[in-house]
Amino acid sequence: MSDTSGPAYAFSGRREHLRSSAIRDLLRVANRPEVISFAGGLPAPELFPTELLARLTVDLLRSREAGQALQYGETEGLPALRRHILSRAPFPPGAFDLDGAVVTHGSQQGLDLAAKLFLDPGDEILVETPAYVGALQAFRFFGARVTFLPCDGEGIDPAALRAALRRRPKLVYLTPTFQNPSGLCYSAQRRREVAEVLNGSDTVLLEDDPYRELWYNAPPPPPVSTEVNPARRLYMGSFSKTVAPGLRVGYLLGPAALTRQLVLAKQATDLHTSSLGQHLLVRFLAEPAFAEHLERLREAYRARRDALQGALGARLADRLSWLRPQGGMFLWARLSGGGDAAALLARALEEGLAFVPGAEFHEEGAGRDTLRLNFSHSSEERLAEGAARLARAVQAWRRQPGT
Amino acid sequence: MSDTSGPAYAFSGRREHLRSSAIRDLLRVANRPEVISFAGGLPAPELFPTELLARLTVDLLRSREAGQALQYGETEGLPALRRHILSRAPFPPGAFDLDGAVVTHGSQQGLDLAAKLFLDPGDEILVETPAYVGALQAFRFFGARVTFLPCDGEGIDPAALRAALRRRPKLVYLTPTFQNPSGLCYSAQRRREVAEVLNGSDTVLLEDDPYRELWYNAPPPPPVSTEVNPARRLYMGSFSKTVAPGLRVGYLLGPAALTRQLVLAKQATDLHTSSLGQHLLVRFLAEPAFAEHLERLREAYRARRDALQGALGARLADRLSWLRPQGGMFLWARLSGGGDAAALLARALEEGLAFVPGAEFHEEGAGRDTLRLNFSHSSEERLAEGAARLARAVQAWRRQPGT
Repeated sequence: MSDTSGPAYAFSGRREHLRSSAIRDLLRVANRPEVISFAGGLPAPELFPTELLARLTVDLLRSREAGQALQYGETEGLPALRRHILSRAPFPPGAFDLDGAVVTHGSQQGLDLAAKLFLDPGDEILVETPAYVGALQAFRFFGARVTFLPCDGEGIDPAALRAALRRRPKLVYLTPTFQNPSGLCYSAQRRREVAEVLNGSDTVLLEDDPYRELWYNAPPPPPVSTEVNPARRLYMGSFSKTVAPGLRVGYLLGPAALTRQLVLAKQATDLHTSSLGQHLLVRFLAEPAFAEHLERLREAYRARRDALQGALGARLADRLSWLRPQGGMFLWARLSGGGDAAALLARALEEGLAFVPGAEFHEEGAGRDTLRLNFSHSSEERLAEGAARLARAVQAWRRQPGT
Repeated sequence: MSDTSGPAYAFSGRREHLRSSAIRDLLRVANRPEVISFAGGLPAPELFPTELLARLTVDLLRSREAGQALQYGETEGLPALRRHILSRAPFPPGAFDLDGAVVTHGSQQGLDLAAKLFLDPGDEILVETPAYVGALQAFRFFGARVTFLPCDGEGIDPAALRAALRRRPKLVYLTPTFQNPSGLCYSAQRRREVAEVLNGSDTVLLEDDPYRELWYNAPPPPPVSTEVNPARRLYMGSFSKTVAPGLRVGYLLGPAALTRQLVLAKQATDLHTSSLGQHLLVRFLAEPAFAEHLERLREAYRARRDALQGALGARLADRLSWLRPQGGMFLWARLSGGGDAAALLARALEEGLAFVPGAEFHEEGAGRDTLRLNFSHSSEERLAEGAARLARAVQAWRRQPGT
């Protein structure tokens, strides 16, 4: 019998790349009721359409579709849901075939499937600075070399992108619309420039667009993908921010030559996405209440963004600078005069406030003076109180030696 | 601009291993209402507890847990569900810690996560002959070399297992209880022998046990895992056969040293399993109705098994031999005198009957004279009529030249 004390396991090479996300670990601490959490990226649960979903579930499970809603389903997803997705997608009609729409188990699974399909150890993938940490986890798990490219207030730098594409990386991963973490929304002009640069290469664009519906000033410009060679684009969306993340339903759109492979990869991964969640979404998307629900979300989150910005402006204007978010769920800030946001977090937790230090959205060692503040999950009152706690933490932290 | 006609994509090496499952493709043909399908492995939808699930969903979404049931959740799964899983697991109390229980997006995801954690291209994994095709897909996708070991009526051959373990394969994948496809249930004695052989090696056992509750004669012996070194076992279960596959909820049990890694892998894969499905299961498992539901399933499937066996015995006793299934969803048959079950399937489809030829559960080129007949998804009447169609197909096929 082998030893049971400290067994050495013969893991795969990719296991070396497994690291816990600091955000997920933080969420545990931040779950204490006395902590105001600007960490995480949770939608407001009080805005979930629970009563409508309860009614739709009863209708569904008492209908002739009940059996299908609880049964195994097709790997590519429920055809009725895929048609809804295509008809609502921010693309010209006919941009994708029905075969080109795949339902995924949340957006994160789209990242896993794309990584599986494209990435061998050592392969290069281009991302923005900063970049969504869940995507970095998925790509790095498959051994990708991640190259961070610079962004300005309009989007990713086209010249840097053009230069990096000469190395023929496997994928370019972009979140041009209200990015997590930065909130950045590329200008229409920059989108066209980026598409043009991409069309000069063979690299596939993976565009992640879960926040598009959460705009607070004006609807965002069309996805970068709209102007990209249809054979070289994959577009990801999600119902996690617009309906409920607990359903775990997202989607991937692309040319059938790619989506057919992604469907095979999904078959080996989890057979198919929850049938119940898909059937509920089909019924919800067919309701006039869906548009009203989106409008209600925008109003509530707009007010929360304004509350956070107002409170930060009143208390921290000289200590923090930030991008004014036009949509999404996050306010991205930088410590004026530099410093380490992780050290600030330790102080903030003492004050009863959690946020995410920005370093993990960057390449190793960079971005230590940045922080991500979520405004979707807290009431306006708690956003104001959280800003007050942050101001106290900054004061205490500034007095520390060595900051 | 690149060509859009026949683009060459720079796929990963693992993409070479992507193949569609013949079963999944067959399911499409078999969906025509005039076809009686013994293909697929679907539970009977008329036995789903739809009315109870409808009531539980309304209770849930009108309770204070509604927000949590629709929100992001913990990667390892809902603690209340993990406690239910542990208390119901066929192991002595305390065999696994709470940290040792991970909720997965169906059993198939357990296979994907185990493959990710252990398998590099060229790594060896041991399986039974025949073996579950979804597992073969998951392992081969990560480049595993799959070695099929012989089984007799009691289970896998211990001597062959011992010899193969000397090569230090990464994993042994076993489904000892009412296997898909063979229906085989290892004897208690063979389970102990297999555990003893495994305990002489460092290889991790991955035991897949989704059919345990579907026994029709007597409850099956405990899992092989019960006697295996706790540091070297992973045990998988599922609610797909006992409640509803459309919820996509399965689980993995193991030592915390392994489950912690599997949770990190899951975080990069899909963040977490559907919260709604997990909350519904917690409520369902707490109902006395759950035990009654299992009893109803056993009664219905027992009658279906008997109907199929009776009809085959009356019409095909001289043309087919089969293992008498004591549980599960499948009857595994062999063509007496040999022949190609794929050619028989072509004839059977002409008669309006679908089944799965057994070759894909075997190593390349083997098992061509085997077939898998599902009995859980058809009424007793349709099972009898399907057997009659199969008998006509066998007659026509026997008259073909070259069979």
